[in-house]
Amino acid sequence: MEPTTFIMFGATGDLAKRKIYPALYNLYVDGKLPQAFTLFGLGRREWTDESFRINVEQSLHQFSRRGAKDAESVKAFVRAFRYSVLDIGREDDYRKLLKLVEGRENELSIPSNRLFYLSVGPEYFETIAANIQASGLGSANGWKRLVIEKPFGHDLRSARDLNRKLSQAFAEEEIYRIDHYLGKPVVQRMESLQQTNPVMQALWTNRYISNVQITALESVGVEERAGYYDHVGAVRDMFQNHMLQLLMMTAIHLPHDSSSEKVRFKKKKVMESLELVQKEDVGASVIRGQYSEGSIQGKPVVGYASEPGIAPSSMNDTFIAARLLIDNNDWRGVPFYIRTGKRMKEKSTKIVVEFKEPVKQPWMKIEEGIEPNLLVIEIGPEESITLQINTKEPGPNGGRFKPIRIDLQAGQADSPEAYENLIGDALNGDSTFFAHWDEVELSWQWVQPILDAFEENLVPLLPYEAGTYGPAASDALLAKDGNHWWFDAKPEPKSEVNEGERYAYNANH
Amino acid sequence: MEPTTFIMFGATGDLAKRKIYPALYNLYVDGKLPQAFTLFGLGRREWTDESFRINVEQSLHQFSRRGAKDAESVKAFVRAFRYSVLDIGREDDYRKLLKLVEGRENELSIPSNRLFYLSVGPEYFETIAANIQASGLGSANGWKRLVIEKPFGHDLRSARDLNRKLSQAFAEEEIYRIDHYLGKPVVQRMESLQQTNPVMQALWTNRYISNVQITALESVGVEERAGYYDHVGAVRDMFQNHMLQLLMMTAIHLPHDSSSEKVRFKKKKVMESLELVQKEDVGASVIRGQYSEGSIQGKPVVGYASEPGIAPSSMNDTFIAARLLIDNNDWRGVPFYIRTGKRMKEKSTKIVVEFKEPVKQPWMKIEEGIEPNLLVIEIGPEESITLQINTKEPGPNGGRFKPIRIDLQAGQADSPEAYENLIGDALNGDSTFFAHWDEVELSWQWVQPILDAFEENLVPLLPYEAGTYGPAASDALLAKDGNHWWFDAKPEPKSEVNEGERYAYNANH
Repeated sequence: MEPTTFIMFGATGDLAKRKIYPALYNLYVDGKLPQAFTLFGLGRREWTDESFRINVEQSLHQFSRRGAKDAESVKAFVRAFRYSVLDIGREDDYRKLLKLVEGRENELSIPSNRLFYLSVGPEYFETIAANIQASGLGSANGWKRLVIEKPFGHDLRSARDLNRKLSQAFAEEEIYRIDHYLGKPVVQRMESLQQTNPVMQALWTNRYISNVQITALESVGVEERAGYYDHVGAVRDMFQNHMLQLLMMTAIHLPHDSSSEKVRFKKKKVMESLELVQKEDVGASVIRGQYSEGSIQGKPVVGYASEPGIAPSSMNDTFIAARLLIDNNDWRGVPFYIRTGKRMKEKSTKIVVEFKEPVKQPWMKIEEGIEPNLLVIEIGPEESITLQINTKEPGPNGGRFKPIRIDLQAGQADSPEAYENLIGDALNGDSTFFAHWDEVELSWQWVQPILDAFEENLVPLLPYEAGTYGPAASDALLAKDGNHWWFDAKPEPKSEVNEGERYAYNANH
Repeated sequence: MEPTTFIMFGATGDLAKRKIYPALYNLYVDGKLPQAFTLFGLGRREWTDESFRINVEQSLHQFSRRGAKDAESVKAFVRAFRYSVLDIGREDDYRKLLKLVEGRENELSIPSNRLFYLSVGPEYFETIAANIQASGLGSANGWKRLVIEKPFGHDLRSARDLNRKLSQAFAEEEIYRIDHYLGKPVVQRMESLQQTNPVMQALWTNRYISNVQITALESVGVEERAGYYDHVGAVRDMFQNHMLQLLMMTAIHLPHDSSSEKVRFKKKKVMESLELVQKEDVGASVIRGQYSEGSIQGKPVVGYASEPGIAPSSMNDTFIAARLLIDNNDWRGVPFYIRTGKRMKEKSTKIVVEFKEPVKQPWMKIEEGIEPNLLVIEIGPEESITLQINTKEPGPNGGRFKPIRIDLQAGQADSPEAYENLIGDALNGDSTFFAHWDEVELSWQWVQPILDAFEENLVPLLPYEAGTYGPAASDALLAKDGNHWWFDAKPEPKSEVNEGERYAYNANH
């Protein structure tokens, strides 16, 4: 692996502590960090190298999936860490940093391969990029890379504006936009399952697929993010980025190779084929909801408008469901249903691919228990890929059919976390599983009429009881096509209830 | 269920004892025998009802998969059993039997639904059928059915001759030819897996399937059947009936219903589409073998020609492998490989459906462990249906691909045995899983040039060492197409060997 200097903005922040240092440590333990590796942590706090290292060590103890029991390896790991005070707005600080970085590069006799990781608010992206450029930090005799986290804009215009500014300092192929859903092992395995199995490739078309359902439900409310969330809503917080990225990953069809360029090309094609919705028509295919009071697992919770930090008159969306159509030969006629929301009945992120009905058999009645075939990619809280098929029940009185779900993946204990995959890829210069500008722009373009329609109140804001699956209109959206959301738990009856039944999957709907 | 009188020829024989009485008992326990059910056992021995019943009880103790622990249910079961001495050649005996049967039918006030089960040598079929006819036993005011076991002829001519004679007493739809491979639960589940799962239906075509391998290996030699076996060989004993039936069951394509007529029609179509081989060309697609001395699991065994009861000059085939082509739109270009033999390395009956290679990925090298997708139907010694797909290895150093085999069927403990399924079907008048005359005739027609070529020694009789997978020519037959037999265990090296490795599947070949 190429020698790398990792320049970390927001080094004292929460994300760095929870995700990035543990990820780097796990990469280190797995031998996936370059031999010559130095990390410069940057922040406003007056830390020393020593206090920075202690802080990093603590984060490993607290957040590494492996813990940090091997004291020796932890010590060796943090030896690569240095700290430098930096005021994001002061170009001078960047020049000082450049000296330190060059000093270290000379010390190690390595080229100036520099990875800039911006774990800071998006309002700083522009300033940082400009100062990197102006200070000479970016004019490396090796490569330079910029890693940033969402949000990539607030709407189509601001996203384009941000991109224009970043582009002045970094070329598109130098920018790595993290969407951590793309780093999840199960999402990556979904791709390889398609690529390496002809039986999966064969099925991956509108000839056999009836519809696709992409669901990301949270049971939590806004929590401490009220100020931010009230400004963005479910549509910007989840839908425009994670959900549309999952749609692209599901719909890209049999790439012949997984080169970053090819995947980027395929994803762009999907977005270009998404049927655009006019602002006036958004209401026909998009459901907008906001939670009202209700209960989560028996505990009463307040409605969104009563949450601390939220104005009682807020018209913000905490739920969105949409029906999307991809107008190309692979997917024409296959609705993609997407929904995401807060204060839902359960925490669950999954993709369900529903195959077309079995050929109707005159001798088979519905009661006989035959269900559609389903491919289910569970992304959270547990990860799994299963296929639901029909089998005959065993035993002497068998002969009745019933659906079973079979595991398509061997046990995946101790998988790397999303950030390990993504940081490892960025170190290797592989942008396959990152969000590329084309996709980001096209996503905002697709979402913009929805933003406008919400803004102008052209779509009703439907209240839904906390602890449910959102407004009834979300079910009706699928029912129009003769479909239904798979695996929604049955509603809790008001009267006494059998616990076992309450949480049973509602497979028969 | 309709009242039935079960008339059992060969009631004192081995098959009846081992298979038929235990099957009837299990049907009885499962409530799948008619309420009004009487069995008349027929034989030359001078048994009484009582001694017959004791004999049946013993057979249940010894051979029923459920045992016969419930003394009360066993007693109730055998109460339906009566015995009558009968000389197959004496028409008078049939008239006496008719009196008994009619007496019982009157006693129970039931229609004369009579099922004749011929558990006797095929040389008696004709006489029995004629005497049933002549004696009036067959002129029932209900239905009559004839159940017979293989062999259904010795070649095309004798099969036609036999059928003509049976036809004088029984219509084709009254004849139930048992091929017990068709009664096996896993073979029946293979059909329902296709019928009820669109994802399986989609794959069941030459678009996705590369080749099909049907294998039935025995590790035993001729044992006590030398006289019979030396007269028939592997081609008649296994290939013409069981193996071609399995081929038909694999190749029938998505019947819209499972009515007996539809299945019969589909199977006939498959046989009509089988490319005929001319006698002179048999050697190009058929391998004929005979075992020589060798060892089975470390024990030395003699060659076929040295077996007791076999002439040293015998040219009989104990192994046959063949490459068959089905010339229709579903299967054109997909070779079906069949092999069966005695004294093989292992006992194993299975169908392997090999799917076409994954789309070649420039970034994937062969070493990365990607294998073809396989659907494997294990028929014996264990029953299972599994799908081999490629997955990424779990764990931190994952990312390498490896094939895994996933179980497509829930555990099938306590499944009914083949004879239970088949006798139950015959009692219900359902001939779906029986061999129909069209199939039998077309099978013999396809096999006849092979019989002729063997007879005239146009195909070399290749010796193969006992305890192997047959002559090398059998491997070469597939290698010509770029294929190989799946899951053959590696040959035992002459030198020291690691036990674990010795029996490892040779998946990489």
